[in-house]
Amino acid sequence: MASTMKALTFVEPGRVALDERPIPEIGPGDALLRITTTTICGTDIHILKGEYPVESGLIIGHEPVGVIEKLGREVAGYEEGQRVIAGAICPSGTSYACLDGLHSQDGQGAAHGLKPLGGWRFGNTIDGCQAEYVLVPDAMANLAPVPDGLTDEQVLMCPDIMSTGFSAAEAGNVRIGDIVAVFAQGPIGLCATAGARLRGASLIIAVERLPERIEVARKMGADIIVDFSKQDPVDEIMKITGGRGVDVAIEALGLQQTFEASLRVLKPGGTLSSLGVYSQDLTIPLDAFHAGLGDHRIITSLCPGGKERMRRLMNVIEGGRVDLEPLVTHRYALDDIEEAYDLFANQRDGVMKVAVTP
Amino acid sequence: MASTMKALTFVEPGRVALDERPIPEIGPGDALLRITTTTICGTDIHILKGEYPVESGLIIGHEPVGVIEKLGREVAGYEEGQRVIAGAICPSGTSYACLDGLHSQDGQGAAHGLKPLGGWRFGNTIDGCQAEYVLVPDAMANLAPVPDGLTDEQVLMCPDIMSTGFSAAEAGNVRIGDIVAVFAQGPIGLCATAGARLRGASLIIAVERLPERIEVARKMGADIIVDFSKQDPVDEIMKITGGRGVDVAIEALGLQQTFEASLRVLKPGGTLSSLGVYSQDLTIPLDAFHAGLGDHRIITSLCPGGKERMRRLMNVIEGGRVDLEPLVTHRYALDDIEEAYDLFANQRDGVMKVAVTP
Amino acid sequence: MASTMKALTFVEPGRVALDERPIPEIGPGDALLRITTTTICGTDIHILKGEYPVESGLIIGHEPVGVIEKLGREVAGYEEGQRVIAGAICPSGTSYACLDGLHSQDGQGAAHGLKPLGGWRFGNTIDGCQAEYVLVPDAMANLAPVPDGLTDEQVLMCPDIMSTGFSAAEAGNVRIGDIVAVFAQGPIGLCATAGARLRGASLIIAVERLPERIEVARKMGADIIVDFSKQDPVDEIMKITGGRGVDVAIEALGLQQTFEASLRVLKPGGTLSSLGVYSQDLTIPLDAFHAGLGDHRIITSLCPGGKERMRRLMNVIEGGRVDLEPLVTHRYALDDIEEAYDLFANQRDGVMKVAVTP
Amino acid sequence: MASTMKALTFVEPGRVALDERPIPEIGPGDALLRITTTTICGTDIHILKGEYPVESGLIIGHEPVGVIEKLGREVAGYEEGQRVIAGAICPSGTSYACLDGLHSQDGQGAAHGLKPLGGWRFGNTIDGCQAEYVLVPDAMANLAPVPDGLTDEQVLMCPDIMSTGFSAAEAGNVRIGDIVAVFAQGPIGLCATAGARLRGASLIIAVERLPERIEVARKMGADIIVDFSKQDPVDEIMKITGGRGVDVAIEALGLQQTFEASLRVLKPGGTLSSLGVYSQDLTIPLDAFHAGLGDHRIITSLCPGGKERMRRLMNVIEGGRVDLEPLVTHRYALDDIEEAYDLFANQRDGVMKVAVTP
Repeated sequence: MASTMKALTFVEPGRVALDERPIPEIGPGDALLRITTTTICGTDIHILKGEYPVESGLIIGHEPVGVIEKLGREVAGYEEGQRVIAGAICPSGTSYACLDGLHSQDGQGAAHGLKPLGGWRFGNTIDGCQAEYVLVPDAMANLAPVPDGLTDEQVLMCPDIMSTGFSAAEAGNVRIGDIVAVFAQGPIGLCATAGARLRGASLIIAVERLPERIEVARKMGADIIVDFSKQDPVDEIMKITGGRGVDVAIEALGLQQTFEASLRVLKPGGTLSSLGVYSQDLTIPLDAFHAGLGDHRIITSLCPGGKERMRRLMNVIEGGRVDLEPLVTHRYALDDIEEAYDLFANQRDGVMKVAVTP
Repeated sequence: MASTMKALTFVEPGRVALDERPIPEIGPGDALLRITTTTICGTDIHILKGEYPVESGLIIGHEPVGVIEKLGREVAGYEEGQRVIAGAICPSGTSYACLDGLHSQDGQGAAHGLKPLGGWRFGNTIDGCQAEYVLVPDAMANLAPVPDGLTDEQVLMCPDIMSTGFSAAEAGNVRIGDIVAVFAQGPIGLCATAGARLRGASLIIAVERLPERIEVARKMGADIIVDFSKQDPVDEIMKITGGRGVDVAIEALGLQQTFEASLRVLKPGGTLSSLGVYSQDLTIPLDAFHAGLGDHRIITSLCPGGKERMRRLMNVIEGGRVDLEPLVTHRYALDDIEEAYDLFANQRDGVMKVAVTP
Repeated sequence: MASTMKALTFVEPGRVALDERPIPEIGPGDALLRITTTTICGTDIHILKGEYPVESGLIIGHEPVGVIEKLGREVAGYEEGQRVIAGAICPSGTSYACLDGLHSQDGQGAAHGLKPLGGWRFGNTIDGCQAEYVLVPDAMANLAPVPDGLTDEQVLMCPDIMSTGFSAAEAGNVRIGDIVAVFAQGPIGLCATAGARLRGASLIIAVERLPERIEVARKMGADIIVDFSKQDPVDEIMKITGGRGVDVAIEALGLQQTFEASLRVLKPGGTLSSLGVYSQDLTIPLDAFHAGLGDHRIITSLCPGGKERMRRLMNVIEGGRVDLEPLVTHRYALDDIEEAYDLFANQRDGVMKVAVTP
Repeated sequence: MASTMKALTFVEPGRVALDERPIPEIGPGDALLRITTTTICGTDIHILKGEYPVESGLIIGHEPVGVIEKLGREVAGYEEGQRVIAGAICPSGTSYACLDGLHSQDGQGAAHGLKPLGGWRFGNTIDGCQAEYVLVPDAMANLAPVPDGLTDEQVLMCPDIMSTGFSAAEAGNVRIGDIVAVFAQGPIGLCATAGARLRGASLIIAVERLPERIEVARKMGADIIVDFSKQDPVDEIMKITGGRGVDVAIEALGLQQTFEASLRVLKPGGTLSSLGVYSQDLTIPLDAFHAGLGDHRIITSLCPGGKERMRRLMNVIEGGRVDLEPLVTHRYALDDIEEAYDLFANQRDGVMKVAVTP
């Protein structure tokens, strides 16, 4: 095994670079993964643009599929050579937050065991996985073996977008027979559509403009597409529902406009399940909020992680309940990842997700 | 309109008879339905056999699809001639039980507004719908318009077995990625399988012996069939799950044997969701119950009713999420309903559900 | 029985007037109550000021304690002369909303059975109870007998502020051992404090300035008082919790300032349970919202109603779990109700709630 | 520090003995506690009698209050000398079970990460705390600092009986205004009473015979005592509730008789929350179960553990919500623990809980 590896690092706002970096030293509770496939997330683009700050020199990326290269001396129950994934969120399992079920807000080490977004470590507070190798912390809580017969690309969405998208339907408590609207059909929104379908929504209205995304949205379970470039989505959804509104509206973009529209299409007593990463203050319009008396719920979710979550999601794939491979539109070698960023950041060529292989 | 109608009445244990009966007089909150399609339920067979006692002379049947013939003077929001269904359970909506969400245990009029099974009135405490006409009590809470484009047979399962079967998955809180076992694939069990699938179970193991039911079970979403005539279902399910057990086990038969097996295949922390109508005391084996320390849940559900439930279930059908028509294996005129009972009670000719049309 | 009665009507923004009005005619599902005690709500002041629009000539008031004077011919299970209350929210029980548990958004008669705030009828869409008599619609769903031994004043808060205040703790899912902050200790906030205490919060921090309210807040269960006129409540609450934040923050005032402060004191994963009636758009600050990634929930609740809710709340009073009589600071005859409005609207003389007796 | 310590070991059915044992060697994730106070649990008596099998030579006891003597090299966030408790259940935090919230059924190391009762390790599968020292495994998930100002005896019930008793009310979902029956007022039942009170039950009926326990039951929140030696508890509870039954019945003894009585007093739709450790198969009577159609729930709970749970429970004590010191009726030095067992096993002298101090 060589002592250095290739890795994509954040240099400064507007610039990431493929670099040579030492292969990480393993601690007692860690695992070293050799990455076989990874991908680029919308959040990575926020990082690239400097909208989400990380330290210069950090290796980014948080969606690892790989093989266990080495296990820390305290890690039991795994074998070197095993194919595994780890979630974008790597909970310790042992903080106050985790023991209360708040894995994404894990603050092990912090004063109260709670830290906003604390469970998100890869490519945020520790080196990530757009590299040949990645160190998985708290390995026993995070390594999830890939079932035989599943390819890397089949499970590539589990660490982040599938977990995130599904969580919108789960946290929004989509019930059998619900009417659900999903605002935006990017990768996360597409997974939210799939999640709403999996939870038993009987009518799913997806708001999207791009033909290639609309096509995948239908595969994921969208019944009706509202093209916001041609129609006002609020008017249209209210028309489709005969003035009733939807049981659950999922915001999957991160803008005031979609947040507000989500609220405006809610039935009294409905739930706005928000996934977007916002970049400005949000306004709740008084009328849409029924002055605070509409029995509305606004729920935000950060991607659930940990090996149990990953196990469940891979079982969903293995059981044939959903097929997320149509989301992988482009493939790159790690050597060409800068090119992949360029494509993805500029949303060229109908890109949804890219598979990157070291 | 004639003043009499044909109706199937319970005569005495072992005997039901098609009889001539007056068309019911309508009260202020009632609706009179002209039945267009109805069916026979396993519970009706219990009644026929005298295992579930009802008064002699009662018209039986609790799964009405029909057309509004006449509305009570206090009933607003409907029109004569409208196609509707009503649930097997007809809640008043206004009892203490109903206002607490316990529609099936509705005791409007009873001392505390709670009465075991009190929401079940058709063919139990009031005349039912295996007749040319039926009176729907508390019509405003119970009449659910059939969406245009759905046939009688498409919605025929909504009033009882679809609602009951789905409730097993709902009350058992089946989650995305769960492993679920369903014991018995009669009409209710098949709907439980469909419900588990709709809620996002990633692996569904159905226990059944009859080839024609196995075939439908696969259509409803069963991944693996365990034939209890060839294998011990507990051993087999534990083997399939690698010794882990299932997240949710659904009992859909009503026997000690299946109740116990359901408990034995549960993971620690799992849920036994019970639908069966039992006819004897049940035994909980100490070992399967981990002496009461396994964080197990045993949940029973009676068919949810009311127009909101019916609306949701019909939306599920309309949205193409599930197709229950394969359950209708035989069709009879009301005139021949005694023959239909004979077939159904004796489970001949691969019968699952019969459609009966006046 | 006379044919007219005294009643307080809304005349125009800024003016209510005690008027002579016909005693209402009873419909088949109604009950006529002779009011023995009622009160004035903050919402009535919004109506008085024209901030919440109602029709000119409407009798206002929505918190009735009384005696059944007459029952509609379809109303069973009650007797004339019985002491009862009815909730501020009077659900029909039979709409799609009600059958789905959304009693406050009841839209019986409306297109979809859902209507924002539709369950609130007294003094909003129908004549209210600041009068000698009031008509209770859907009486069987709404009349709740007062247990023997409870006085009018003991149950006077059940119809609205107790139900509303408690709902903040319930909808916010306050758990045993939670730390809860309650912003504002007006009548609703005081009931929210009592509700949080009843649900098992181990530390309750109440934000209030007025000494007389602080004194009652302590009786209701507040452990620590933060006087916002002396300290910044966000800083102080973060200091008290050692930087952790609270599990649940209850907003009980209806201002941007308190809404925002509620969000700022939340732990990651915490819940903002909002009771306030807002009168302007709200802003969610990006930082307090962790860009939408904090697993936060914002829940709004409108006063739960119906006879089952009233039964439960009166049982809480009867069981001695909470004593809300300290909230009644002033007493008036109905004849002097305009004077009571003047006192209450201007918050003079340490007024919390007034009891008004015809 | 000496190299040996005194410790109570299980010798054979019927015999425990105070023995000299080596002070445990610490592993990287462990903490060594010097016990300052501990107690004897009903489960220990089952062990003593051979009814619950453990290995000969095992140190028993699972309710530690102590001081950190030494920390494993991987344990951060604590200091030697700190006063802490650990729960009877010591979850790893990192198993599939734990990551799914099933801490008591933790199976870290087991095939599926799930193991019945697997979270219970002290005095069951590893050495316990009726000794001068105890090793706490997975220390970071389990050490909970005792707030300043709380005595050992004040927090002595947190590790087991308070957590267990409260869980009955939590898992049974006791709501504000519920009527709750608690069968048996031993230490666990008393804590269940306190828990039901803390969750907002408005009427608590406790079934008990012993005057000293009845007295404490009233302090914990019981409103009505049913003495089963004088009255049939089912008849009496049905009479008290006017024939309605209770919302939640808590079984806190572990016998068929109390299990069955709990079911018989349930309202339709009610919940049996079971805490008992049963020693024989249980029978569910058909009639009490309404043939499986009563919308009943039977929920079992094993003591919740982990440092977050302990933190919350100590906050409840610190906040003055409940005072469990009346349960400590006797005090012994560790040297005299065999005598304490004799007293406790034979339930002499009105014993409830004993405090044992090394």
